[in-house]
Order: sequence, then structure tokens, then C-alpha cells
Amino acid sequence: MESMWADLVPVGRDRATGGYRRHAWEPADLACREWFAAEAERRGLDLTIDRNGNQWAWWGDPDAAGPGVVTGSHLDSVPDGGAFDGPLGVVGGFAAVDLLRERGHVPGRPLGVVSFTDEEGARFGIACAGSRLLTGALEPDQARGLADRDGTTLAEAMRAAGHDPAHLGRDDETLRRVGTLVELHVEQGVDLVDRGAAVGVAHSIWPHGRWRLDLAGEANHAGTTRLVDRDDPMLRLAAAVMRAREAAAEHGTVATIGRVEVHPNGTNAIPSRMRAWLDARGADEADVRAVVAAVAAAAGTEAVVESWSPEVEFSGVLRNRLAGLLGGAPVLPTAAGHDAGILAGAGVEAAMLFVRNPTGVSHSPTEYAEPDDCRAGVEALATVLADLTGERS
Amino acid sequence: MESMWADLVPVGRDRATGGYRRHAWEPADLACREWFAAEAERRGLDLTIDRNGNQWAWWGDPDAAGPGVVTGSHLDSVPDGGAFDGPLGVVGGFAAVDLLRERGHVPGRPLGVVSFTDEEGARFGIACAGSRLLTGALEPDQARGLADRDGTTLAEAMRAAGHDPAHLGRDDETLRRVGTLVELHVEQGVDLVDRGAAVGVAHSIWPHGRWRLDLAGEANHAGTTRLVDRDDPMLRLAAAVMRAREAAAEHGTVATIGRVEVHPNGTNAIPSRMRAWLDARGADEADVRAVVAAVAAAAGTEAVVESWSPEVEFSGVLRNRLAGLLGGAPVLPTAAGHDAGILAGAGVEAAMLFVRNPTGVSHSPTEYAEPDDCRAGVEALATVLADLTGERS
Repeated sequence: MESMWADLVPVGRDRATGGYRRHAWEPADLACREWFAAEAERRGLDLTIDRNGNQWAWWGDPDAAGPGVVTGSHLDSVPDGGAFDGPLGVVGGFAAVDLLRERGHVPGRPLGVVSFTDEEGARFGIACAGSRLLTGALEPDQARGLADRDGTTLAEAMRAAGHDPAHLGRDDETLRRVGTLVELHVEQGVDLVDRGAAVGVAHSIWPHGRWRLDLAGEANHAGTTRLVDRDDPMLRLAAAVMRAREAAAEHGTVATIGRVEVHPNGTNAIPSRMRAWLDARGADEADVRAVVAAVAAAAGTEAVVESWSPEVEFSGVLRNRLAGLLGGAPVLPTAAGHDAGILAGAGVEAAMLFVRNPTGVSHSPTEYAEPDDCRAGVEALATVLADLTGERS
Repeated sequence: MESMWADLVPVGRDRATGGYRRHAWEPADLACREWFAAEAERRGLDLTIDRNGNQWAWWGDPDAAGPGVVTGSHLDSVPDGGAFDGPLGVVGGFAAVDLLRERGHVPGRPLGVVSFTDEEGARFGIACAGSRLLTGALEPDQARGLADRDGTTLAEAMRAAGHDPAHLGRDDETLRRVGTLVELHVEQGVDLVDRGAAVGVAHSIWPHGRWRLDLAGEANHAGTTRLVDRDDPMLRLAAAVMRAREAAAEHGTVATIGRVEVHPNGTNAIPSRMRAWLDARGADEADVRAVVAAVAAAAGTEAVVESWSPEVEFSGVLRNRLAGLLGGAPVLPTAAGHDAGILAGAGVEAAMLFVRNPTGVSHSPTEYAEPDDCRAGVEALATVLADLTGERS
């Protein structure tokens, strides 16, 4: 595990911030994809890339021997993200395969390691794009037309990276191979710290979404334009930011405006237009929608939905089986979206294991997990995979 | 005048916005500098470039025949600026020379047209950098170290454009040539509309400045971080924006936050740090300083001064002479900084003429002045220059 980790550490890491910038189909992401292919080959696993660009490494033939058990996560990152969110689940998946082989386990069902493409949505704005396309939750035409900040579309970016975007969309051939999915992930909170456990099992994923606020204004000179003559969208942004925090507190949700674009963004120019993005999540969908409506009203504009994920509760049978296998590991809710949640929402039997995060910090260069806790996570994953794939008789 | 204008119109114009992006020492700015040199040559004027990169075109020798009368303005723009702010004064200066020659005027004093470099400060953050360096109001070492958003310093940008930055600084040799400066400029307000006049004379320039607010936060996941655990600098920005408007209204000034940088600027990431810039101006310096203090307090940070310009009152003698020559043209205050204000602040006899702006809008692609009003401005400038340079006996 340590050597896999060491190979990945420098890829897409910004020297100044120490954070990762592995954005879908950019060079750092392509380097991660090469890393995945090399790790599959090193183990003699069969590498396939599905129509939507997700990478799969199979031990056993899931077409011949019936649906398999899959583990994995993603390798891309938010801007200046941490080292663990995503990679822990992919590295951990290969490491669990290694453990099972060391122990002489002969799986009774095919076992796959997956790396979903574009989980964070950092470049094209839609999180879990790879798994959403796979399950049909994202329309191929919409996906192909998504543009990054430079105006490059997802279709163009894929094509430039050698992946034909013509065949994007729900992929039943690939889905049929996935009997069960178990995703290992660093916790993005401190529940496991509070409970004194290295590893936990996910209960459900809060309903969550992303909305865009387009704030129009009138460009003008910051010095010579009287206050009464101004139409300054920065004031509407400020109102929206304040309201997001208030409404989230009122409704018991979270709400964040963390991305803003200002035009022309000059010191002595009143902005002509701005865009801001609202991320809102909560245990209850009605609360989330109330917060979004309050923020849009404060901003004086419409909240344009860019993605929406209803609540996902993971399979109760599988969840209880995992908690039992792991000696009564705690069961936790999560406010973060994950590819396992997308597949669960599409009817795939899915579960997640979380590894303790000492500070709870995530999506940051300071995101961390202790090596011993990561090893405990891989050990737990191997235990679960051994059970789910059974022994060949 | 029309052909000069037509040559300049396409230079540095963004097709999408229709606004100008002529930022100091970038290709569009260099094209403007070539345009200036060609117009000087076309008229047989002597082109000189001073130590700080300002361009001068002389009719007559200001070293041999004593200090001259200078007119002009600047050719650079804010991001997505208008066509008139700056260029009207330079095109108008050449056009006034043409008018004087058509009328057989033989100046008794040398007459110069100037284009000051980097008036808007769009790239390196300090407005009127060329005239501030010329008068010693900006330290050469500070100027050389100013960096643009890509980290390129002013020294590097100058060197790349073929201008040696080693000799920046107060330039007495050049200043000695400037007996009087008259800058023609589009009005950035609607005083002349209210007064029904095409041309006015400037009274004074409000004290004004730019301050930077560094807002620190803690990067974290927008979904999984509880509200109480957050340190989100976007909330401090919002407080600063709100307070800027309130405090400006209380103190009778203007205050604007029009430029913001967010890191990492991801939809599902609480920002780790942000920067915002405050532009504040008013008739009274104490009021401006009170507004800046209030905004800094709301932001919970220091306001770092990036530039400060005390009030400048233009020469009363010259102002009255111009108003008289122009048949009692209205005399107006202005909240915008100008190179003529920098030179006046350094003791140079200086004045400004304003041309009516039908909407008052400036620093915007929609900035406009009627052709008839522009011609009236050039006519007024020619009248003033004829008077100030006298007839050779």
C-alpha cells in the first residue's frame, strides 16, 4: 500500500498550497488514470474502461461468472483538495486485493476495483458525473455540453484525452457486472473521533444539490457613480451569503457559497455581472429546498439547479452485515455525495466504509488520516470483500 | 479625428463584451503605443519616451524654447472599459494640433501631446503609475516589484516590451518641459447633462484610494462541516460589502468592492482565503478614512493601503481663465483620479476639460459621448491651447 501511495502523492499536487488539483481529463487526472492502469496490470487484473470513462480492474470475469463484488472510489480532487478523499478508496481497493491474495483467498465471485471519473465535478460543475452517466442520472447531451471555466466542453476534453464522448450514457452492460459495491472513504467529519472507532459504516447520504445564482448589474465607475445610481451585484451576493448562513441555521442544514465569479473584477469598476454557486444539504429535503428559496430571494434572482441528489439510504441488509463483520462498527450518516450513493440510488446494492479523520477537515490540503487508521480501513475492506465474494468451493 | 478614432477602435476590444482590455505593457497597450508614435510621426512632431514609459509628441523644442503647454491623457483601460476614458484626450490632443495648424496658429511656446502609461492600474494595481513615477509620488523600487495576477512584475513586463525599468523614478528633465497641462476627458457622471453644457472645466479631484482586504479562513468540505465548526471568509466579505455601502451613505462618500479573489473557488469547498479590494472616495478625507476603518472592522482584518491620493484642487487662475475662454463653461468637481491631478499635486499648473457623457456611465463597454460633443471638446481644447501657447510675434 505504501508504494502505491508514494506513486500517487506527487501527481497534481500544487507546490504552493500543498493541495491537489486533479480535475477531470486534465493532465494530472490522466496521470492518475495511467497509475490505475499500471496497478491493474501489475496484479494481472483485466482493465476495462466503460463508455463513460470509468476504469475497472477485474479479478475474474464478471460476464462469465455472474455479477461481481466491486470496491473503489475516485482519483480526481476539488481545487486544492486533500490526498485522501477518493484515492484512499482506490488504493485501499488494490491493497485489499493484495491482502486477500496473501491470505490465499480464492473468490467465489468476480472482484473488481473501480475508479469513477470526475467525482468532484470541480471542472465541469456536476459531481459524480462518471457514476451519474453510468446509471443514466445524467443525460449524455447535457454532459457533453458542460463547459469548464475556459469554455472547453466535457466532450472536447474527453476527445482530447482520447476518449470518444459519442457513447456516453446509461451503460447496462457495465452495470450488470456490479452485484454489490463497497466504497472505502475518509470520513469528512469527526463522528468516528467522537465514537473512538477507526472504521465506520455509512447509513445514508443526505439530500444535496448545487445551484447557480446569476447576478446582473450595471458596470460603472467606482468613483464617479453616486450610490443611488448604482446597480451593484456585489451587494446582492453579500445578501445571499448572509441569508445562506441564517437560513441553514434556522432549518438545521448546511449551505455554502464557496465559488464566485466577478466581471470585470476591477478595483475601480462596479461589476457588470457576477455568478455564485450555492451548495446546500440537509437531513430533510424540504429544509434544503426552503434554504435554497431563501437564498434566491435574498439574491433577487433564480437559483438554477446544476445538480440534485435526493436522499439515499444504503441497503439495510448489507449495512447490518458489514457492521456485524466489523465487530459492531458504528453506523453514521453523511452529508457528502459519493459514487456509491449514485449507484445505490439506481438500485445497486451498495455500502460505504469510513476511515477516521482526526480533524474532520476535508476538501483541504490539511485533510488527513493516520496510517494505522488507513490500514484498519483496508483490513476491514478485505474482511468485507472476503465475505461478499465467498470462497470458491 | 475620425480616422484616428477608427484606427484605435479595434485595438484591444473584446468581441464578446464589446469592452476594452488595454492593460499596461500587454500587446493591446503596445499596439496603442505604436499608434501614438505613428500619429506623432505623421504630424512631424518629435516623439520622446521618458524614463517611466510615458510618450510625448512635441511641436517645438521644450528644452530650447522654455517650458511648453501639454495636452493629452492615456490609452490604457480598465478590464472591459469604454472607448472614451483616456483615448478621447489623446486623440483630441492630436486633433487640436490639426485644428490649430489648419487655422494657421503659430505657437509662441512649444506644444506637446502626452500619453501617460498605465493610468488605470488595471494590471499592476496602482492607478496613474506613469504620472506618479514621473513626479516621484511612486517609489521606483515599489513600482518595479508590483506583480500582476500571473505573478509577472512591472519590471519584467516593461523589459519584455523593450523598456528598461532601471531608470524609473522622478524625472525632472521631463517635468521641466511641462509648463502647463490641460487634459481633455469624458465626464464620468451627469453634471454636464444636468447643466445642459457639452464641455466643462474641472474644479478639483476628491481624495481617493484603494485598499486590500486579506480574509483568512479554513478550507473545508461544504457538505460535512457543521456551521459552528466553520471559519468561512465569504461571510466576512459579505459583512464588508454591506458595511461599505452603509458607511458610504452615512459619510456622504462612495465606496466599492468590485474585485474579489477566492481560493480555491470550488462549489463544494469553504474558501481557505480570499482577497477583496476597496475603492473609497469622498469630498472630505476624514470621511473617506472613516469609511475604510468601518469596512476593515466589518471584515475583521486590516485594510492595506495600495494607493492614496489626497485632494487636488486645480489652479484657480488657470481654471478661471479656461472657463472664461469657453464662455462661462461650468466648473465641476470629480471623484475620479487623473494624471492631470497627479501633476497638479506635484505643483504643475494643470487643468482638465470634461466632455458631456449622456448616461454618466464609465468604465463600461456602454460608456459613450456624442460625436458633436467630442468635436465641441476638441474645439474647446484648441481654443485653450491657442490662448496658452500664444502667437509667435
